[in-house]
Amino acid sequence: MKGKPIEVLKERLREISYLASASAVLGWDQEVHMPAKGADARARASAQLSNVVHDKLVAIDDDKALTRLKKDVEAKKLRGKDAVIVEETWRSFEREKKLPADFVRELSELTAKAQHVWAEARKKDDFGMFLPYLRRIVEMKRKEAKYVGYKDSPYDALLDSYEPGLSAKDASAMLEDLKSFLVPFLKEIRSAKVKVDPKKTKARIPLSEQIAFNKEISAAMGFDFEAGRMDQSTHPFTTTFHPQDVRITTRFREDDLLYSLGSTIHETGHALYEQGLPSEHFGTPLGEAVSLGVHESQSRLWENNIGKSEAFWRHFYPKLQKRFPKPFKALPFEEFMLILNEVKPSLIRTEADEVTYNLHIIVRFEIEKGMIEGKIDPEDAPAVWREKMKEYLGIEVPSNTLGVLQDVHWSAGYLGYFPTYALGNLYAAQWYAAMEAEIPDLNKKIAKGELSVPREWLRKNVHLHGKTYKAADLLKKVTGEKPISRYFTEYLKKKYGKLYSLGSKK
Amino acid sequence: MKGKPIEVLKERLREISYLASASAVLGWDQEVHMPAKGADARARASAQLSNVVHDKLVAIDDDKALTRLKKDVEAKKLRGKDAVIVEETWRSFEREKKLPADFVRELSELTAKAQHVWAEARKKDDFGMFLPYLRRIVEMKRKEAKYVGYKDSPYDALLDSYEPGLSAKDASAMLEDLKSFLVPFLKEIRSAKVKVDPKKTKARIPLSEQIAFNKEISAAMGFDFEAGRMDQSTHPFTTTFHPQDVRITTRFREDDLLYSLGSTIHETGHALYEQGLPSEHFGTPLGEAVSLGVHESQSRLWENNIGKSEAFWRHFYPKLQKRFPKPFKALPFEEFMLILNEVKPSLIRTEADEVTYNLHIIVRFEIEKGMIEGKIDPEDAPAVWREKMKEYLGIEVPSNTLGVLQDVHWSAGYLGYFPTYALGNLYAAQWYAAMEAEIPDLNKKIAKGELSVPREWLRKNVHLHGKTYKAADLLKKVTGEKPISRYFTEYLKKKYGKLYSLGSKK
Repeated sequence: MKGKPIEVLKERLREISYLASASAVLGWDQEVHMPAKGADARARASAQLSNVVHDKLVAIDDDKALTRLKKDVEAKKLRGKDAVIVEETWRSFEREKKLPADFVRELSELTAKAQHVWAEARKKDDFGMFLPYLRRIVEMKRKEAKYVGYKDSPYDALLDSYEPGLSAKDASAMLEDLKSFLVPFLKEIRSAKVKVDPKKTKARIPLSEQIAFNKEISAAMGFDFEAGRMDQSTHPFTTTFHPQDVRITTRFREDDLLYSLGSTIHETGHALYEQGLPSEHFGTPLGEAVSLGVHESQSRLWENNIGKSEAFWRHFYPKLQKRFPKPFKALPFEEFMLILNEVKPSLIRTEADEVTYNLHIIVRFEIEKGMIEGKIDPEDAPAVWREKMKEYLGIEVPSNTLGVLQDVHWSAGYLGYFPTYALGNLYAAQWYAAMEAEIPDLNKKIAKGELSVPREWLRKNVHLHGKTYKAADLLKKVTGEKPISRYFTEYLKKKYGKLYSLGSKK
Repeated sequence: MKGKPIEVLKERLREISYLASASAVLGWDQEVHMPAKGADARARASAQLSNVVHDKLVAIDDDKALTRLKKDVEAKKLRGKDAVIVEETWRSFEREKKLPADFVRELSELTAKAQHVWAEARKKDDFGMFLPYLRRIVEMKRKEAKYVGYKDSPYDALLDSYEPGLSAKDASAMLEDLKSFLVPFLKEIRSAKVKVDPKKTKARIPLSEQIAFNKEISAAMGFDFEAGRMDQSTHPFTTTFHPQDVRITTRFREDDLLYSLGSTIHETGHALYEQGLPSEHFGTPLGEAVSLGVHESQSRLWENNIGKSEAFWRHFYPKLQKRFPKPFKALPFEEFMLILNEVKPSLIRTEADEVTYNLHIIVRFEIEKGMIEGKIDPEDAPAVWREKMKEYLGIEVPSNTLGVLQDVHWSAGYLGYFPTYALGNLYAAQWYAAMEAEIPDLNKKIAKGELSVPREWLRKNVHLHGKTYKAADLLKKVTGEKPISRYFTEYLKKKYGKLYSLGSKK
């Protein structure tokens, strides 16, 4: 290859990204369309393609061009956007390079197998079956942290691959703050004398009508259906082949429109970020999302701060009532809002409301950090889980299926991933507060259905920057403050104080 | 890599095949699901993946392991199935190797551009716009033939990549025979006093019901929907990721169920071949189809020899009438059969009946062979086309859009491909005759809906052999005779003699 070294690097990165995008097409098809018997062959094809991508990534500096570019950046000969590309590419390349090929293969084989065993163990409520795998995965992730290197805690090295630049110490501090607010706040809500009857939003609505309504909401948020699709799958997800081809999935329940709606709004939030990334930088870090936490902040901001807000439903509830008189016509707005936002401790994270959700995350975070730091033995995870669920959420965990075995993450080797879900909620509240400060009549506009207002704010302040800034820096730049939990707790206090008349009890 | 050299080769071939299969997933998604704006990124991703596959293929003998295996085969140290794998791999590798990398890239860039220009030229009925591209493609295909090498005609080298082992001379002889029968036979049919009114099968049937019926027919033929899917696309096609994941597409017209049915049966014929290839040999030539002609013989046998036969409809017509009283209840069986098999010269190949279809092919074959042998100047192609259509089919061609510009093949560089369509029809009739000879009550069984009888015969005699035999050898082995046109002409005489009462005129 010839040309300016930075241009050569960009072209290499694009080549790799197009192959990764091919890989994403296979993943999407697998979840959405693949016939049952196609599974084995697909696993082989996906593995083969992943190998190609991995090989190209680790070979990216074979001619030392990246190393030279990195030196140019250090010598300030290369600045601005190009420097970001080099720095970010170097960061992932360096991490990749530190891991021996044998280690990577072993981990990948282990987690592939562990996910099958986990699925079986969850089905049979048999933690003992999964334990040897969890033990081995924790060992290997500790080893990974050693290879990668860290300052304070081995957990730093793991968290860094999902939320670059955030230390375990800072994450802990934020989540501690959050917990110390949430636990008493939840008790306060639970003792409020407000009756909620979720059955009132349940009624059979044909699938085709549910799909149509979900698509309308998604389109109203600004999802470009010419640059994406919405389909069905067992677990909702968003996947991106390119900013011009972003796919979301939703799942449906025949008798519960709200079940699909929440997940559609959530996935559309992710998708707007992906469609909003600058196409001209596709393939380079400038065309990529900041971090998992920032990605989750987009989905959660739409799902909760907007999608469960009074303003949003002032506009959409009359439409919903008109479209689906059964069950909504006879249901008053205030009662609908209460059902939509009901706070109720439950066993399953993915079904949790926005008050209890973060407590689910904190349970996982404390356990996985403990295991990685050698302070919790994997064998004790179920017991610790039960204690913490009791302590933070006030509920008993009747089985490991509904407890420690419920999420796929650990079996897949994703230790360090969970906190990004909570970070997403904190960031979302912080973005939203900044947005409100800048656009004083924001909620009035939303109540008029002008969803382009928040969308364009997010596009300008978040999406278009790609990976130019780390999460903390971007938040600081846009909101004037580093990430903190206060915006989120203030948001909860205000919203749920009103919904549950918490003030009135005093 | 280590292990027995032949096993190492097989593993390499499988790796390449899984990547090619990934590539096929991208192609399928592109036709069936891709949103409009995703096209550019998809083109890049597909090109990137094709490059990877091509690079791996040309590198397959870098360590000379294939060369050594080839010598083992020549020295009869390696025999049987393993020898077939080596021979067939060598054949495609050698062809690939003879073409300089620059030439391959130039041709691929030329045809990518030519296909766009052709689409535009067809829309505008402007052959002049396409001519420079056609000229350049013909030049390059002549050059390709020189690189590859040939005995009698440069056309040999092109035909060989679609129908391995068949010479231009043998193909010409078969098609000449066919033409000398078809031209007068068509005149005879056209002068028959039989009235056909295709409007009688037209009526609006909701898409969902059409899809359901098409799927039932496909399932009755033996298409395994757990190892495949049926979807919609503009142009029907079959694509295979693995024998356990074969996908077909159909297109529909609201007022014409038969329009979709023919193409569903055709594609299911292809799909049964793909699902019937031995999975255990996936990736190696033993798990691949013999040739395009043999592939087409499977689709055409099902579409025409079975799917337009009296026996087939004795079973399915009552179902059709019951399911769709409008338009079929009042339409007598004999009249339905006549509409289904109406012979009517027309301009467009893909809509032609089974008598005129091969004349369309012969027109293309004679012109492309003439161009490749330097006997027809590409500039004269439209005029020659018009003359031949008049002479063979008796019709005037009013525009190049409906004439020489109608098919994508030449713009894509597929010269040598067309004859395989006609070969498919000849082979199909030859298989069917052998099947009838072996199973005397074949048509009775089909009339009882026992479609597993022809399917299992094809599976045993054709599908399971993979590429073990060349087309001519397989036909000889199974039918006792090399490929000839007589079975097909006899079949037409018998079937259309009856339908059009040709005997009674004499």
